[in-house]
Amino acid sequence: MDFEYDLVFLGQMAKKAARKLASIGTAEKNKALSAMAEALLVHEKEILEANRLDVERAIAKGLKSSLVNRLSLTPDGIKEISEALREVINLPDPTGEGEFWTRPNGLRIQRIRVPLGVVAMIYEARPNVTVDAAGLCLKSGNAVILRGGSEAIESNKVLVRIIANAAEENGMPQGAIQLVTQTDRKYVQQLLKMNTYVDVVIPRGGEGLIQTVVQNSTVPVIETGTGICHAYVDRAADFAKAIPIVINSKTNKPGVCNALETLLVDDAVADQFLPLIGEELRKHNVEIKGCSRTCELLPYALPASEDDWATEYLDLILSIGVVKDLDEALDHIYTYSTKHSDTIITENYANAQRFLKEVDAAAVYVNTSTRFTDGGRFGFGAEIGISTQKLHARGPMGLKELTTIKYMIYGEGQIV
Amino acid sequence: MDFEYDLVFLGQMAKKAARKLASIGTAEKNKALSAMAEALLVHEKEILEANRLDVERAIAKGLKSSLVNRLSLTPDGIKEISEALREVINLPDPTGEGEFWTRPNGLRIQRIRVPLGVVAMIYEARPNVTVDAAGLCLKSGNAVILRGGSEAIESNKVLVRIIANAAEENGMPQGAIQLVTQTDRKYVQQLLKMNTYVDVVIPRGGEGLIQTVVQNSTVPVIETGTGICHAYVDRAADFAKAIPIVINSKTNKPGVCNALETLLVDDAVADQFLPLIGEELRKHNVEIKGCSRTCELLPYALPASEDDWATEYLDLILSIGVVKDLDEALDHIYTYSTKHSDTIITENYANAQRFLKEVDAAAVYVNTSTRFTDGGRFGFGAEIGISTQKLHARGPMGLKELTTIKYMIYGEGQIV
Repeated sequence: MDFEYDLVFLGQMAKKAARKLASIGTAEKNKALSAMAEALLVHEKEILEANRLDVERAIAKGLKSSLVNRLSLTPDGIKEISEALREVINLPDPTGEGEFWTRPNGLRIQRIRVPLGVVAMIYEARPNVTVDAAGLCLKSGNAVILRGGSEAIESNKVLVRIIANAAEENGMPQGAIQLVTQTDRKYVQQLLKMNTYVDVVIPRGGEGLIQTVVQNSTVPVIETGTGICHAYVDRAADFAKAIPIVINSKTNKPGVCNALETLLVDDAVADQFLPLIGEELRKHNVEIKGCSRTCELLPYALPASEDDWATEYLDLILSIGVVKDLDEALDHIYTYSTKHSDTIITENYANAQRFLKEVDAAAVYVNTSTRFTDGGRFGFGAEIGISTQKLHARGPMGLKELTTIKYMIYGEGQIV
Repeated sequence: MDFEYDLVFLGQMAKKAARKLASIGTAEKNKALSAMAEALLVHEKEILEANRLDVERAIAKGLKSSLVNRLSLTPDGIKEISEALREVINLPDPTGEGEFWTRPNGLRIQRIRVPLGVVAMIYEARPNVTVDAAGLCLKSGNAVILRGGSEAIESNKVLVRIIANAAEENGMPQGAIQLVTQTDRKYVQQLLKMNTYVDVVIPRGGEGLIQTVVQNSTVPVIETGTGICHAYVDRAADFAKAIPIVINSKTNKPGVCNALETLLVDDAVADQFLPLIGEELRKHNVEIKGCSRTCELLPYALPASEDDWATEYLDLILSIGVVKDLDEALDHIYTYSTKHSDTIITENYANAQRFLKEVDAAAVYVNTSTRFTDGGRFGFGAEIGISTQKLHARGPMGLKELTTIKYMIYGEGQIV
């Protein structure tokens, strides 16, 4: 297959589709979403067969079992994916909203929310993301080009064929939902340079994937995901709050971006707090990588290397550091944070306020678990990811973050 | 001077300053702005002397007179720059604003507007931009690293020394306003990769500069500027509106990004309209590059090449094309527009609505001049540029676009 031909053709199709999608009403988009959800259930057998090919290949290649699990689909899994699509129907359509004002010269200026155009999603071998992303992009009026992890290619081909057909049969333009069917990575590189056809690239996955996209893309990127989240237990902390918060942040779902990776403890309470939390963490099978002071207090802790402070474990491992005071905690967080979610546990008003103000992160918490950083838990509905950058979107991103604005100006012959 | 040392040091200083700036109140920032404005007047002589060096060097190098003009400062020019800084004092400070809500579990989520952090401005040899950008960044709580065109280096060194000192003497942190004093372009390349220290790069200038930044930056970019703006004269146009709008859009200030570059005329009225507008354009010394039909009707028009449709002349030159109908006009705009500002002149309701909806640009106009795309004319106050991208900011960018949001969450021990 000709290198240049392939993706440019997808890009052109997507651009054409985007132009049409921008004028399609919410009711029509919802009808298509409903048909897509239905089609997934109708074609369950086909999806499971394709998925089995992916899974068998992954096992043969020796893929980690946690990754095989994320790749595997079951009849219940397909039902969940279909239901998630139905939930998108209930989300309000952000396009077409806005405000307007009139200038002294009579010009009426209308600021209206419109789709971004063409969204490229680059993600790992998780077939549910394929359908999720397609649904959210369609609802917000965007065409989408999907590039999922190569291990899920057979599943993705079938899923996209099914939902794209259902969408097209229900009035959506051809090219609204497309998949990069070639798994060669050179196509990712090409996609990242297609400024003519792609309005935004959203990478979703681990640090490696995200950095590849950030370093190579000339198309604007919304970074998502990587979370080296911190909890700081202040000298004025209430241990009865601190212990469940640390345990919940670390162990509730260790493989996700809002899970805790580093615990910082004020030196003034380290003697009392560390043995208590150490015992709890051991009960939850959490391995501890500690600073020298932590290792003194907790004989079962391993010494933390410089790298540990900068590592998103996504596993039952926790770095623990003892700090002199709040200032040292803030400096540590400033140095190692990925600006995702950080929490302070304290009963001291001034320290809580300083932490909220000075920590530069999408979500900063007092006396609560970092696991709350989530579109659903914030009350936004489904999310397309959690932005850790500052431009355009920060924190949980919903449908609104898949749109932009445009000014429409109504005149009667005004000139400057 | 050591390559690595230099800019990394600037970046570290800027990051430190940004951390402090985020907690400084509006009143204090305004006091510093006022002192900066005053200092420019006090040091007028010094500024003019440095500027004379730049201007002499530019003339000796044979720089175009329009560029020499933009570079040259006069006592009145310095007064204007100082007054522009005073106007920033009157703009509302966008930081610290926001909304909050309470979740069913009692968590109070506060979405608050905060500075971006460190802004890098890359621009051409216009000393007024140096002070403008520094003022807008300071007011919005950002540290700024300025990199102006090398032809203005002596002026910029003096300007930045004066305003940075005045800011520092009035409580702003050291490093809040810095200049890249080395003119070697390798420093621009380094700046574009300093993701650790720079939160956003804003290029301001011609197409070449902007593309260099977009193609090379790993730091998020806000594109500004390039405007291939179109006017479409529909078959239902009122010529009494169309003629002044076209003349105003093209000739009021041809060197700016919201000036008209291409006129499209509906074939049905080309016979009547083109001779009328042609005469007017000639009176205003506008050179015409026409399609074959335009050249038939206007013997003084030169034939337009394919490149002309994609050129931002920034001069008294206008491309004119005759199109079959609104669809062909929309296709032409879709192909060549830089998504800045486009206008339709028509009395037909349906055509006006289609144009507003289907043209993908920051500002779309009916029966008015493209020259209105401007922060001041939209009612926003001073602007830092006009964004032609869709992420984060679109159209005129004011102080709000120099900020981001952050979630502060107040808990009492909640866990997931």
